[in-house]
Amino acid sequence: MSAATRARRLDEASSITVFEKGGYTSYANCGIPYALGGIIEDDAALILHTPKDFKDRFNIDVQVNKEVISIDRESHLVHVRMVGTEEIHQVPYDKLILSQGAEAFRPPIDGVELDHVVTLQTIPDLQAIRAHLSDRGVLSVCIIGGGFIGLEAAENLSNLGLEVTMIEQLSHVLPPIDANIAEVVHAELRRNGVKLFLSATAKKIDRSRVVLTDGTEVPAELVILVAGVRARSALAKRAGLEIGRTGVKVDSHMQTSDPDIYAIGDVAETEHRIAGHPMVVTLAGPANRQGRLAADHIFGKTVQYRGNVGTAVCRVFDLTVAIVGLSVATLHRMGHDPLWITVHTPDHANYYPGACPITLKVAFERDTGRLLGAEAVGMAGVDKRIDVLATAMQAGMTVFDLEHLELSYAPPYGSAKDPVNMAGFVGGNVLRGDCRIVHAEDLNVDELDRLQVVDVRSPKEFSRGHIPLAINVPVDSLRDRISVLDRARRVVVYCQVGYRGYLAYRILEQEGFDVVNLDGGFKSVLDGAFKELHKAETTV
Amino acid sequence: MSAATRARRLDEASSITVFEKGGYTSYANCGIPYALGGIIEDDAALILHTPKDFKDRFNIDVQVNKEVISIDRESHLVHVRMVGTEEIHQVPYDKLILSQGAEAFRPPIDGVELDHVVTLQTIPDLQAIRAHLSDRGVLSVCIIGGGFIGLEAAENLSNLGLEVTMIEQLSHVLPPIDANIAEVVHAELRRNGVKLFLSATAKKIDRSRVVLTDGTEVPAELVILVAGVRARSALAKRAGLEIGRTGVKVDSHMQTSDPDIYAIGDVAETEHRIAGHPMVVTLAGPANRQGRLAADHIFGKTVQYRGNVGTAVCRVFDLTVAIVGLSVATLHRMGHDPLWITVHTPDHANYYPGACPITLKVAFERDTGRLLGAEAVGMAGVDKRIDVLATAMQAGMTVFDLEHLELSYAPPYGSAKDPVNMAGFVGGNVLRGDCRIVHAEDLNVDELDRLQVVDVRSPKEFSRGHIPLAINVPVDSLRDRISVLDRARRVVVYCQVGYRGYLAYRILEQEGFDVVNLDGGFKSVLDGAFKELHKAETTV
Repeated sequence: MSAATRARRLDEASSITVFEKGGYTSYANCGIPYALGGIIEDDAALILHTPKDFKDRFNIDVQVNKEVISIDRESHLVHVRMVGTEEIHQVPYDKLILSQGAEAFRPPIDGVELDHVVTLQTIPDLQAIRAHLSDRGVLSVCIIGGGFIGLEAAENLSNLGLEVTMIEQLSHVLPPIDANIAEVVHAELRRNGVKLFLSATAKKIDRSRVVLTDGTEVPAELVILVAGVRARSALAKRAGLEIGRTGVKVDSHMQTSDPDIYAIGDVAETEHRIAGHPMVVTLAGPANRQGRLAADHIFGKTVQYRGNVGTAVCRVFDLTVAIVGLSVATLHRMGHDPLWITVHTPDHANYYPGACPITLKVAFERDTGRLLGAEAVGMAGVDKRIDVLATAMQAGMTVFDLEHLELSYAPPYGSAKDPVNMAGFVGGNVLRGDCRIVHAEDLNVDELDRLQVVDVRSPKEFSRGHIPLAINVPVDSLRDRISVLDRARRVVVYCQVGYRGYLAYRILEQEGFDVVNLDGGFKSVLDGAFKELHKAETTV
Repeated sequence: MSAATRARRLDEASSITVFEKGGYTSYANCGIPYALGGIIEDDAALILHTPKDFKDRFNIDVQVNKEVISIDRESHLVHVRMVGTEEIHQVPYDKLILSQGAEAFRPPIDGVELDHVVTLQTIPDLQAIRAHLSDRGVLSVCIIGGGFIGLEAAENLSNLGLEVTMIEQLSHVLPPIDANIAEVVHAELRRNGVKLFLSATAKKIDRSRVVLTDGTEVPAELVILVAGVRARSALAKRAGLEIGRTGVKVDSHMQTSDPDIYAIGDVAETEHRIAGHPMVVTLAGPANRQGRLAADHIFGKTVQYRGNVGTAVCRVFDLTVAIVGLSVATLHRMGHDPLWITVHTPDHANYYPGACPITLKVAFERDTGRLLGAEAVGMAGVDKRIDVLATAMQAGMTVFDLEHLELSYAPPYGSAKDPVNMAGFVGGNVLRGDCRIVHAEDLNVDELDRLQVVDVRSPKEFSRGHIPLAINVPVDSLRDRISVLDRARRVVVYCQVGYRGYLAYRILEQEGFDVVNLDGGFKSVLDGAFKELHKAETTV
């Protein structure tokens, strides 16, 4: 509808027709989990515009319950079938825009066809789930898939008082995000009573449960499939249009291999600016802009689509988790060798009530400092920092540039050194060689005895838990007690979040020690659930 | 202290001494209004570090109650006086950093020296005000100055149950912001019982009141002077260092005209990147970074200060108001001829509960679209949008770039078309010539009869108030009723916030009309208090 309305704004004279296979158009499918949970009280709020609205305001002919079943490219015709009938008619076009979106993937699980196994994508899906909940007195729900929609569903179903289980095939939820950030989300899910099965695959679904491949039985009177989506590219394929790895191929004007046919939104694959190759990005913002640009190009404007950076945010109970660009794991998988740093910085000035830490992880190129990805999780201010970093990334900024960013500060909103600045300071220090760091995932517990692990926190903090074999030398006494350290062995310093560790690093490094600082400090160990590195916590 | 601690991190061997004239160092003066109002419950929270902390952690010698009274540049000595004594000693330096800040300006008002006339800058100021409030049973407070601190003071004193009056010499509060945005702040102040005197000057202060030049008497048992600050550049001046228009002159390494002396923070003037000339920027973020960079330069690092864009935010009761770059009025005053647009867009998806409109005004270069300034006001999400725009501005982005920005969206956080994108779409339309706009301030009510003013909202909206002489042709019926308009006369269309007006513009423009759309719609008229343009509201 973005394309259609932009087209009308640009040209009053054209005939613009929209075919929609379903019964609704222009509804807010991002709101569906919240309508399910009752946060959005009236489903009508989801329906942004009706076909009549489009006729009255835009002179656009929206035909619902009409499916385009084939495209005759040579004659410039589409064949349209009235849903539920065999009635087919032909409609001519000069320019055609494909915008069918993506459909929920239904994994090949025994029982997946049962009628209590539902998807959560459309208003009819929402109505179907409601009917199950009320008519059948459902108490237990199993969500298959731990992506964004799955997490929103978990929160909303849990808020309805249901017993919620989530099954994720991978070792952590939110596959685009790194495992250590996802661990914070796992903790929040568990804290709210969601049962989580990770690295788990559903083998069989029956009326009352889901059985996993390892034999575990999960009670489930309703099963929600949110295991990803697939571009609806069959029509384009049948028409002979070029199809990519994940969706219909388009150029920067959203033109397919046929210059009179455009594809936009979840059906099309567009350049991921960091990955450097095309992929379907199933996000509303990019889809809207693509629609606008397709209309622009049809009516002679030359604005080009710039590709995606994958900016995404999700609320999970009291947490917000967000990402832009690529995670470190994804970068590694793609053959990159990035640097990355972690800061745990309050969302606003610590001295002002209500400050909550944000864990912010920023990855960048080893040579240039160019930003490659950022992930954040926390209770407040997460979306702001990811939007700032998304803007920085789209501007081609480096981690050095983050040091200089002048962001708004008053006590309720931020700090004189914003979390984004802090990421810049830490990243800049690493890139300039002023601090060498080690990541918790790279600390092998079996090799700790070959290192000197120095906990520079206070004795009280140390006594509450620390890394195995660590000795406690608080940073404030490090200058006086430096003789307790062995200059011949590498030192790993750490504190709670990384700052005091960095101070200790600077002292030791200038004293000639071979030293590294633990990125993000002990909090990164705890949050990331690096269990081997904090088993001492219970034994001290 | 930013400079001192960075210096220590870079160099363990140097002797680092800090002289502070007052009794406290490293305290959060941005928090002082909130400590006054009791939101920050314990003043101790404001004191981030004590001299002992600096000694223990950084081996920095912080000497409080010591004033540097002169600099002997030739001998590389400072003369230091113990406050309250005549005891003076000499201290040698290799490198000297001036960081005295700025002091509250005391306007030459009769009675300004009375002891119930106080400033609000330091912990002793805070203690003095508290003593007045408790010992003297103060009920009425007059705040002289409507800048950021004045507004924070108004909110906090009002929350204490005091009768608060604010006097501002200019025609609106927050001088860096445009009048029409400041009007929204005025309404919020009045809604919360703050009495506001604009374009008003205090002539005389006595024990119980402030008398304005027009004879108005304002009850005031306590008077708070927050009428701006002046750089404490006297010491630098006496030492023969170059002084600029507003503070000590420095280069991009924060070096003064003497390469062994640096100046940072509110005492120094640095390049304003949009204004293109140096000025003192009294903000904590820039001051912190300047300190860091001065230390960097002293210890051989070559990072340069990039200048300021003036990103600032302020809470005023339930509102947030923020700015980056320059306001339209300031741009005009400086001889710029910018374009600007206004959007009123919800902070998050309208269909999700709690959405509040943000008024966002973005100014850009007429030829290139380069961003020059952005101002925003609203109940939520204001700081996020200004930080995104601050990042975009620092990256040298144009208004076209805002169309493309991929920002995070989930229903609780934003919209598929973020307010920043909307500003880009509207600004891009204006720059590309797809829409011509007129601003409320440029609509002369006496000339409306030469135009056709067309209100394209619903009859119900129209009946609640409209622009004088406007006729009502709802956009949905405009195509059918186009014949009611006179093709020979210019048409001004408007709706509530600008979008339907834009649709009407596109219809009329393609029909050959000479048409302009009212920027920001009728909401801009109402919010900006353009009284002549909505006097009909009460007469219809």
